[in-house]
Amino acid sequence: MIVLSGGTGTPKLLLGLKKVLPWSELTVVANTADDLWVSGNLVSPDLDTVLYTLAGMIDRSKWWGIEDDSFETHDFLSRLGFRELLAIGDIDRAVHIFRSELLREGLTLSMATERLCKVLKIEEKVLPMTDDPVSTMVSTPEGEMHLQEFWVGRGGRPEVKAVRFRGMEDAHPALEFLAALEKAKEDGEPVLIGPSNPVSSIGPILALRGIRNLLNEGKRKRSGEGKGEKGKKKIRVVAISPLVGGKPLSGPAAKFMRAWGYPVSDQGVADLLGCVDLLVVSPESDYQGHSVRLDTVMRDEEDSLRLAEEIVKILDEETETEAET
Amino acid sequence: MIVLSGGTGTPKLLLGLKKVLPWSELTVVANTADDLWVSGNLVSPDLDTVLYTLAGMIDRSKWWGIEDDSFETHDFLSRLGFRELLAIGDIDRAVHIFRSELLREGLTLSMATERLCKVLKIEEKVLPMTDDPVSTMVSTPEGEMHLQEFWVGRGGRPEVKAVRFRGMEDAHPALEFLAALEKAKEDGEPVLIGPSNPVSSIGPILALRGIRNLLNEGKRKRSGEGKGEKGKKKIRVVAISPLVGGKPLSGPAAKFMRAWGYPVSDQGVADLLGCVDLLVVSPESDYQGHSVRLDTVMRDEEDSLRLAEEIVKILDEETETEAET
Repeated sequence: MIVLSGGTGTPKLLLGLKKVLPWSELTVVANTADDLWVSGNLVSPDLDTVLYTLAGMIDRSKWWGIEDDSFETHDFLSRLGFRELLAIGDIDRAVHIFRSELLREGLTLSMATERLCKVLKIEEKVLPMTDDPVSTMVSTPEGEMHLQEFWVGRGGRPEVKAVRFRGMEDAHPALEFLAALEKAKEDGEPVLIGPSNPVSSIGPILALRGIRNLLNEGKRKRSGEGKGEKGKKKIRVVAISPLVGGKPLSGPAAKFMRAWGYPVSDQGVADLLGCVDLLVVSPESDYQGHSVRLDTVMRDEEDSLRLAEEIVKILDEETETEAET
Repeated sequence: MIVLSGGTGTPKLLLGLKKVLPWSELTVVANTADDLWVSGNLVSPDLDTVLYTLAGMIDRSKWWGIEDDSFETHDFLSRLGFRELLAIGDIDRAVHIFRSELLREGLTLSMATERLCKVLKIEEKVLPMTDDPVSTMVSTPEGEMHLQEFWVGRGGRPEVKAVRFRGMEDAHPALEFLAALEKAKEDGEPVLIGPSNPVSSIGPILALRGIRNLLNEGKRKRSGEGKGEKGKKKIRVVAISPLVGGKPLSGPAAKFMRAWGYPVSDQGVADLLGCVDLLVVSPESDYQGHSVRLDTVMRDEEDSLRLAEEIVKILDEETETEAET
């Protein structure tokens, strides 16, 4: 299974998927459009959260950073009157340095991530969506700013006039991401879009050259139905809506969806993603497309495990249905 | 008083000078040819040691780094299998980040150092010798390497074939350093060369364009005697030899002096520096030039204070003698 991941909702699900699936069946592709050089090193918030989750190090009270990390450097910077945009823990910073030193040596982000997986003893495959720099930029009445400045620096308060992915036109999907999708098409392996922000977490992954086409290949036009043209191989895409009761559980998804002209609803999520065969929505949803209703709120590890089990079951059933078609 | 400083001996003396002199009378110019970008940020070992000493933060057991600092990030990098060339403490790293963020914003090293002095509540003036990048490079049978790689990375073990200052030809002395020297000439203020490595700590400062000439201006040719041409303003230079019993107390001075073709002796130090009016040597020295014999070993703060008092007294007496000439 290929999981497209942002930073909070999807990693929560990964906690469960890691227990349900053998490691060899899990490939996680993380959004990197939140990435930012902070204090001399590349912080990759979504990639880091995925790595820390799979390594069993994630701070589960915040869903960023490392459990029981100290903040000596960050706190002393504050004492010096310097505002470090992200609160980087000391161990977290070591990971950023490790990655950035490899990049400075000339390695790609994919190669650096592979090395990080190795030293953090992560067996699942974790891939950045691209090796090229892409930045989600948010236009506000105070000017355009990086997503992290908008969300962390300004607490997500400014009005959002537009959201764009700077650098996207020159970016290519990571080679291993493309290879994984090609293999998924051959093997009938599904792509799971986790419950992450459809604009700023999943949006950049799908906006990469060729990705949405590849996910829609072999499907009927306007197929919200998940049925394909007979015989032609295609990738089944199952997405978990990040909305519960018509609202995102966390993050700036609502503002961003509106800025892109989509209603903040499951239909809006499906339309925005534009490649979904089956949408998992919360029980009270009025979504009319091909869908399954599940409790998608993950309060603790037990919830993560339950949802992961249900998702895997649905994917298996879908595969059987597909095979019968 | 302008003090030219390297990284261990001179800072030890500064501990005493800081108590003997009012802060407004102390200007410290630090060597920056040891500087190195480590883990994304500029480490300036000699400048840092001077700053930490004057801020009362220096780790006096090692004479680098900050007292009671933790090493969370550095240690975790080791656990990841990454060798960080210098053991950077977490608080120490915050200082490097503070400095490097200012440099990334476009400030000069002088401006960044001024800001650091302010936030560290240092009242004395601390200047980097230059705002331009200069690196002491050591040629060994294993190839040429940065001084830090030679000394910290290889424990100073390789044979030294040559020592050069990379970037020196394009470097200018910091403007404030030049201004301080001009003012010293006007006011009859002395320059004190601390007991630091004459090749790699003091050498780069004196090798900067115009500095040695400025220090020798108005002096008789070959004046080891400290006497000047009548009437002409000149800068009196007093140096403390880093040798005790014909050997440096710490650091690679002996290897470096030999590589430059100088004997490891006080005469060698005086010749190498090439601008000294009075050399302070240890009691057993056989140095024949204009000199004062003092116990220059600083085992603790008391020693630092004693030597500082003696040095200030000598400088005052020299000033009187000069005035009589």
